[in-house]
Amino acid sequence: MPVISEKGQLMPQSPIRKLVPFAEAATKKGKHIYYLNIGQPDIKTPEIALEAVKNSTLDILAYSRSEGSETYRQKIANYYAKNDIHVKHDDIIVTTGGSEALLFAFGSIMDVDDEVIIPEPFYANYNGFSTASGVNIVPVISKIEDNFALPPIEAFEKLITPKTKAILICNPGNPTGYLYSKEEIQKLAEIVKKHDLFLIADEVYREFAYDGNTHYSIMQEAGLENHAIMIDSVSKRYSMCGARIGCLVSKNDDVIKSALKFAQARLSPPTLAQIASEAALDTPQSYFDDVIEEYVERRNTLINELQTIKGVKVAKPKGAFYCIAELPVKNSDDFAQWLLEHFDVNGETVMVAPAGGFYSTPGVGKNQIRIAYVLNKESLIKAVNIIKEALKVYNN
Amino acid sequence: MPVISEKGQLMPQSPIRKLVPFAEAATKKGKHIYYLNIGQPDIKTPEIALEAVKNSTLDILAYSRSEGSETYRQKIANYYAKNDIHVKHDDIIVTTGGSEALLFAFGSIMDVDDEVIIPEPFYANYNGFSTASGVNIVPVISKIEDNFALPPIEAFEKLITPKTKAILICNPGNPTGYLYSKEEIQKLAEIVKKHDLFLIADEVYREFAYDGNTHYSIMQEAGLENHAIMIDSVSKRYSMCGARIGCLVSKNDDVIKSALKFAQARLSPPTLAQIASEAALDTPQSYFDDVIEEYVERRNTLINELQTIKGVKVAKPKGAFYCIAELPVKNSDDFAQWLLEHFDVNGETVMVAPAGGFYSTPGVGKNQIRIAYVLNKESLIKAVNIIKEALKVYNN
Repeated sequence: MPVISEKGQLMPQSPIRKLVPFAEAATKKGKHIYYLNIGQPDIKTPEIALEAVKNSTLDILAYSRSEGSETYRQKIANYYAKNDIHVKHDDIIVTTGGSEALLFAFGSIMDVDDEVIIPEPFYANYNGFSTASGVNIVPVISKIEDNFALPPIEAFEKLITPKTKAILICNPGNPTGYLYSKEEIQKLAEIVKKHDLFLIADEVYREFAYDGNTHYSIMQEAGLENHAIMIDSVSKRYSMCGARIGCLVSKNDDVIKSALKFAQARLSPPTLAQIASEAALDTPQSYFDDVIEEYVERRNTLINELQTIKGVKVAKPKGAFYCIAELPVKNSDDFAQWLLEHFDVNGETVMVAPAGGFYSTPGVGKNQIRIAYVLNKESLIKAVNIIKEALKVYNN
Repeated sequence: MPVISEKGQLMPQSPIRKLVPFAEAATKKGKHIYYLNIGQPDIKTPEIALEAVKNSTLDILAYSRSEGSETYRQKIANYYAKNDIHVKHDDIIVTTGGSEALLFAFGSIMDVDDEVIIPEPFYANYNGFSTASGVNIVPVISKIEDNFALPPIEAFEKLITPKTKAILICNPGNPTGYLYSKEEIQKLAEIVKKHDLFLIADEVYREFAYDGNTHYSIMQEAGLENHAIMIDSVSKRYSMCGARIGCLVSKNDDVIKSALKFAQARLSPPTLAQIASEAALDTPQSYFDDVIEEYVERRNTLINELQTIKGVKVAKPKGAFYCIAELPVKNSDDFAQWLLEHFDVNGETVMVAPAGGFYSTPGVGKNQIRIAYVLNKESLIKAVNIIKEALKVYNN
């Protein structure tokens, strides 16, 4: 019998996935679950996007250009210009989600065994993309006590080796909710210029910046043109996770030329979803104002409720829709599974993401969970109350 | 300035892509081009598929399951059963096109520098997927004189090394149009069992089998369960190339488990396209009957017309909608470019795919072109006439 590859064996399983069978069993038993474990917002997709697909008159669902349709890329460039990011449509390659954009970026700038430095905790699927690409993640730890701010730049510098090709950040951060300041981005810019590295920024949560803070893109930083690779996606911006449309943006021509070859090999991003995504760019500002207002209220509710639980430490997120909470438990994997298997309040329980999977340093984050505040306030209050009651029982 | 990876530099450009600027220039000059270079059929997508998307009532375009929606996979399994392929829905992972299915297969069974044996000429993008995956293609030549039948099995056996992990075939073949017989599949089955290899079959053209021949799938071959990995796609079957929906099918649990981890990392295949693809499974048989009849007529027309040209050798395709023709030219890259740049008949010219890009042995196929018969008969007649007239001029 032929055996699968070492790569296939090493591919990590998502930290949430392990819990799915327990969630399914709980549901079968009639338990109601508040899903705080995944970034699938309950926000409606803009009607303008869905209508565009319904009104499409195409009778052959044909390939689009590998780099995405010309008109769509033009409109993306206009959207960026409004966000003070000045790029041409030729600096943009439309991808099948931010995921594919990251794979193209990894493939274009790293060979087998090369290294990318990432502040941890980080989006767990970066592990999968690095294994798939045969490259290594070198983590630099950021701390809940600092709200997950950028670690001291000396901590990055210590980790740079001849194999280091890039620093990757997610801004605002999944799973931390941290929004990097202009000064922090500039510190990163200095170090990548000094060491001839790429700076990849996953900016898919750009619009989700709260408390009057403004998102500062790596594409706005002068002098970083040859170093900056931006990853973007329509998934969260327009609550269109299932569209699978993202893009890779860079002013470095070699990066774009290489990414285009990866894009050509897989022929085309999805056509129907590009129609939806192009139309979504005309979503009125009021949609975002409402969404941001909703998320700020949810965040405030969530943080306030969590702070009423003895022994819980929580970072205050300034963006995205996640927060990391430290719980008075030894093993949040076990606690998350126990919540699904053995606990309920009036037939209701909660599914959370154990945070260990967001760290690559072994053993770190074992007492933390990630909460996605993608449910309405009433549900969040009930869900946090369940966690509160659960901790009383679990710790005895 | 940071430099891109060796992988990024090595990624091949599609053999057609190099011609695109010349085609664009020709169009600008007012030339009409018959596009025989790409497998984008002019056949209409089944209405039932497009209507399903228009009738969808979803108001949040959410992620689907990473392995594809449960109902869709159930219906795919039913479709296969009708084709005498007996698999469970759990043997199926829905992917973003056949392209992604192949990437998942390569990642699941091969590590860096491992080898896959492929009869050449082969689908050019296999080169891109192998470079992206860091693995090596070992070609075994099939010949136009034999209609591109399976090379003698000894030719495969000679190429097997400890690094060999799989044999990959495309059946019916792009770019050859060759349909492997049951006996040929059984020969391949013997050799992969003997050497503990995987057999990957790209069967996206399953329905396109002509002249009363029946397609024999590797999934029908008893005893091959642990070896067989089938790649499939809705692109050609329903003229839905832009959907970007395919699947990987295997009864080898380890392969499915590994492929699922790759699938989880990229979250989900496109949701709208899955709706279209699920509905497409209800396309009435009459659609296929009409399409097959149309392709057979086109093939007959194309082959007959090509055979009227002195010095042209052509294999008679039994499936798919491609054929390879050998021309009385030294360099078909140059000829294809010249057709676009310097030749026309009454303002019309032809775009063909030089076949060199479908071979990985250097220098082979330089006098061949691939023709996709995706245009109607009248256009094919005009297009072949242009090639006929062009050869008279070009060779002087």
